[in-house]
Order: sequence, then structure tokens, then C-alpha cells
Amino acid sequence: MKLYDCLIAPNPRRVRIYLAEKGIEVPAVEVNILTGENLKPEFLAINPRGVVPVLELDNGTRIDEAAAIWRYFEALQPEPALMGRTPEEQAWVESWERRADQDGMLSARDFLRNQFPVFAGRGHPGRATDRQIPDLVERGRTGMQCFHELLENRLAQSTFVAGEGFTVADITAFCAVELGILGEFPGLEGYPAIRRWHGVVSDRPSVEDWIANMSAALAALSS
Amino acid sequence: MKLYDCLIAPNPRRVRIYLAEKGIEVPAVEVNILTGENLKPEFLAINPRGVVPVLELDNGTRIDEAAAIWRYFEALQPEPALMGRTPEEQAWVESWERRADQDGMLSARDFLRNQFPVFAGRGHPGRATDRQIPDLVERGRTGMQCFHELLENRLAQSTFVAGEGFTVADITAFCAVELGILGEFPGLEGYPAIRRWHGVVSDRPSVEDWIANMSAALAALSS
Repeated sequence: MKLYDCLIAPNPRRVRIYLAEKGIEVPAVEVNILTGENLKPEFLAINPRGVVPVLELDNGTRIDEAAAIWRYFEALQPEPALMGRTPEEQAWVESWERRADQDGMLSARDFLRNQFPVFAGRGHPGRATDRQIPDLVERGRTGMQCFHELLENRLAQSTFVAGEGFTVADITAFCAVELGILGEFPGLEGYPAIRRWHGVVSDRPSVEDWIANMSAALAALSS
Repeated sequence: MKLYDCLIAPNPRRVRIYLAEKGIEVPAVEVNILTGENLKPEFLAINPRGVVPVLELDNGTRIDEAAAIWRYFEALQPEPALMGRTPEEQAWVESWERRADQDGMLSARDFLRNQFPVFAGRGHPGRATDRQIPDLVERGRTGMQCFHELLENRLAQSTFVAGEGFTVADITAFCAVELGILGEFPGLEGYPAIRRWHGVVSDRPSVEDWIANMSAALAALSS
């Protein structure tokens, strides 16, 4: 088994945090999306969609999309449960995870991909054909604002996103909030509940100091 | 229990097809997104994200996002299995379902929402603040093209999207392909495997004639 990974990319990060929380180790193959390694023929032969993460099983089956990779390991090794136990819990966690993905991750993606010079000509992940769309920076900003408000209201009533325990909904929401920090989105001053939760999640050993590594990677590319 | 539904919207449709396949009936409350009912205070009190479908349980819990609603019923009533059985099957179905969602549904959304006059000022679902972005029509078209190629290659080797049986991956892929037909995306002439599969899925009793109803709704609004 191996994981096609990218240390500076947010979606592989969702898988790395999950695996660390479960105590599962999977050998990783690094694919650097900043230098466009994911768009070269060698990687497109592995995943024609040109995106990471991809989990390759020993029988050759390849699974992409972070949540599908979680699903595999959650079914294989249910504890600690990160995707809910009862039908209602499972649906509730998935509802919040999809909200964080659609409103948080995708808004941050629009905001960053259409703005940072390193993504010129790659305004959409996995393709080399999309020029950046400046209007999407603003739409991404609006989406991030809406997501922060939704998350603030939720975390004002709940320790973690889906309840009293840490779940995959926290993983996606945390990665989305950190993409905002990286993109110098207006900060978390007006969001005390998000700040409290962000501090709690940041202290978990599964969450490495990604912002510092990512900032260094971007600085190296611009210099 | 009740389902906040919208007969002409593609995401509630994913839930309706699923429930019909499972033989589950849930009372529906119609929320018309074409006339903006989803953006009125009454509905925003139910779902601040302003989107349908939403499943409301008898205890008041509200679950939104089609896939989270599937998850609830799949855990409650596992047969017929529409989300895989073994860990590998579950992950494989989810991988294809997320591909169809990210590459198919979201590309079609960009393509339609930023083009049809009825969505002026509502370029993003659930918000009344986003003017249409003409460049996103072209990006959506590129995304739909990539999705059709991925799907054609897959369906050339497999009866249904995730294997020999019908699953939620077919539901999402079918709804995405039908959004393309609705938006007069260049058709399926070059995609014989998609045409074969589209015919097979169209014959299932769970799939009502949505294109005809949706075309009629759009024609009524423009007249």
C-alpha cells in the first residue's frame, strides 16, 4: 500500500492528520503540486484527474479524494471513531464535513488558486488549462466569510465541530481555516469560538506546523 | 421526519433517486430555488446555508448535503447496498461519487449558474450576493469535458460507474450528465459508453423524467 502525498497541499494533509489520529502508517510518495509534478504524464498515468491524495492498495486499486481514503480506513479500523457511530452520528459528521469542504475548502481554493502567481495557468486543481479568474478571488472571499460565520455559530455551542469528540469534520474545517490564515484572509479577531477551537486542534500531535512549512515553501518559490 | 426538497434542483434529486431505489418514503416540503424561496428568512432559519436538500429528523436534527442524507438511510437500512459493503467497496464507491460530484456536478453548476438569466445575482448556491462570472461558464465547460472523458473511459470497462451494480456514484454521475444535457452542453455523440449507461439508468423507475420537467420550468420562467 502507498499514499501519493504532497506535504504542502491541503487535501493530502486531511489524510495525514486522519492517519496520525488513527495511529496508522502508510508509506508516502511525494508529488509536488507547486512545481506541477501532478500534471506530468508519469502522475497522470496514476491519476488522470491530476490530483493528490491517491491511496494505492496492494491489489493495485487506486482511491482518490481524501474522504474516500478515510472511508477505507474507518471501515477497516473503526476505533477511534472519527466518522460517527450511530446512523444519526454518521450523517451528522458527514453533513458538517461536507459543509466544511464545500463552503470552506472550495472557497479557500477559489481565493488562493486564482490569486497566487505560482498557480498562473492552473486556476483549477489537476489541470494545466485554466487561467486565473480574478473575480473568483472575491467570490472565494465571500464564501470564506460565510463559512467562518457558520463555524463560529456552531463552535459557540460545541467543543468540536460535530459534538464533544474530534472527527473528520474538524479535520476539514481546520484545514480550511488554515488555508485562510495562509492566504491572509482577514484573520480570526471577530471569531472567538473559532480561535478557541483552533488553539485546541493545533495542540493535537496529529497536526504538524503546516502554516510555517507552507509559508516557507511559497517564499522559496517567489525568491 | 421530513425532507426539504426542490423538484427542479439537482441535489435534492440525488436524494429522491436514492430513496426510490431503497423503497423509503419521506414526506417532502417543496422549496423553489428558481424563485429564490431558499434565500428567504423562513428557510434560512431552517438552513442558514440556504441550500436544499435538508433532512429533518423527528428529534429536530437537520442534516444537509445529499451524501450525508444517504449516509443516514444507508446505516439504518443497509439493503439494497448503494454505498458498497466491504471496506474497499465503500471507499471505491465514495471515490467515484466524489469524483462525479467535484468534476461533474460542480463544473455543471459553474456552467449553468453563471449563464442562465434566472440565476442573475445568485452565481453561487445559497447566497444572494454573487453576480455571475462569465469566465466561469468556460471553466465549467472545460470541467464537464474532463468529467465526460473520465466517465467514458470508466464506463467502457464497467456496467455501472463503480462496478457491476448500481450505486450512489451512478446517481451523482447521472445527475451531472443530465445537467449537461439541460445546459445544451455539446451532447454525448462522442461518448458511446456514456450513452449506453445513460440509457440503462434512464430506464430505472427511480429516475423520473427530470429533463422534461426542468425544461418546462425554465421555459415558464422565461416566457
